[in-house]
Order: sequence, then structure tokens, then C-alpha cells
Amino acid sequence: MDRVPILKIGDILLVSIQVDMSDQTAIQLQEDLAERIVATGSHGVIIDITALDIVDSFVGRMLSTIASISKVLDAETVVVGMRPAVAITLVELGLSLNGIRTALNVERGMELIAANRGDEWDEADGDEDVETTATS
Amino acid sequence: MDRVPILKIGDILLVSIQVDMSDQTAIQLQEDLAERIVATGSHGVIIDITALDIVDSFVGRMLSTIASISKVLDAETVVVGMRPAVAITLVELGLSLNGIRTALNVERGMELIAANRGDEWDEADGDEDVETTATS
Repeated sequence: MDRVPILKIGDILLVSIQVDMSDQTAIQLQEDLAERIVATGSHGVIIDITALDIVDSFVGRMLSTIASISKVLDAETVVVGMRPAVAITLVELGLSLNGIRTALNVERGMELIAANRGDEWDEADGDEDVETTATS
Repeated sequence: MDRVPILKIGDILLVSIQVDMSDQTAIQLQEDLAERIVATGSHGVIIDITALDIVDSFVGRMLSTIASISKVLDAETVVVGMRPAVAITLVELGLSLNGIRTALNVERGMELIAANRGDEWDEADGDEDVETTATS
């Protein structure tokens, strides 16, 4: 009931956080996301926080944890939809969203993930779990 | 605060309903959606109800109203992520989701909208607000 739904759109998992996160909900979301990343082989996680009025240290830590878990599972996390007031509060509180990339909206988040995947292919293919990536 | 966020992904607006809808929230969502459809020129609205345990007559009516409003604004509404139990309850309650199309998940909903737009182009271009759609 108190699960945050995870939507799959192409190569990306999309999470829209709308409810106040409790310890329980946050842990559940982390587990669900990890499972879905593995099950779907997604390379990107977009977390939309448009609905959040405030990002406190608890939510900030949750986002960082999700980003770390995703990274281990070879998926990149992008937080999108941050309100101006939230950004200001984050800085004022001295909270840094460690290891989290941000983008203005879902579309830019998708572009960011797509662009980064492209870069990675260029830089080092071989240690990625694909059959063949040779382009020529 | 109690606003349901509307995400824009390409030509489509995506709404993930996670909170219990009150009269106020429902009306706000209808207004917000109508405004966003006009502002973005979107042709499709996808409403994800994965998080809903139950769709009662109130939610059913809200979905129908959204679909009707969207239709007037030349956008198609697809409801996705309905749980099996919700579908069973809907039928048992004798609720019919008038004018609402459904799809299994967001991706299929997007395909449905894209396919329908394609059909419409084929059937009757000219009364659509595009500059040129002649393909040859």
C-alpha cells in the first residue's frame, strides 16, 4: 500500500516521489528499485521530486543510497524536478547530494542518461555486459 | 502540496496517482492537466494507477472526467498499471470506465497513443494543427 510505484520507460526506471517517506517506505523503495534494475536490466533511474516541498537530510540520504545501489548495479541515478525553494534549502542546510546527478525535468534526465551511456561506450567497451559492441 | 505532479515525456503527459484523491485534489489535477495539455500541445495522457488498491466510483468518475477533458483538447487518455484485484472489483461493482482506454503498463500505453495518432494521420490529416504532414 505504501509502496512507491516504479515505472519502466524504455531503458529507464522512473520513480515519482509524492508521499512523505518513512523509514519503511524508503527501505522498501530501495529494495524494489534494486530488484527492478536487475530484472529489467535498466541503465538509468530517474527520481522525480516535483511533489516534494522539502528535502531534508533523511530524504537526501535516501537519494544518495539509491544512487549508490544503482551504481553498483550499473545504473545511473538522476534526480529531476527539484523546486527552486528546495534547492535553496538544500544549500542553506549544507546538504550535498553525494553522487547524485540532477536535471531540470524528466526529459533532460533521460537525455543525460542517454548521453552518459554513449560516453561510456566510447570510453571503454569490453567490461560492459553486452554481447557485441564493436562498431566497426 | 497536495498536487499530483504531471511529468512530460516527449509528446505525452504522465501522471502517477499515489495518494488518496480528495475532491480538491481531483479538481486540481483536472485543471492542471488541462492547462498542461494546452501549454505543451501534448497528444496523450497516461495515468498510472499502480499504487491504487481500489478504484471506487469517485476515482472512476475522475478518470472519466479527465479523459473527456483531454479528448476535447485533442489528447487521448490511457490508464495503465491497473492491478488484477482492482479490475475484478471494478467489474463486480458494475463500474465501467467510460471513454477510458487501458493498457498494461506505461510503455504499452505510449505505444497505444502513438499507434492511434498514426491512425488519425492516415484517416484525416488537414484538420490537425500541423504545418505539413505530407509524406511524399
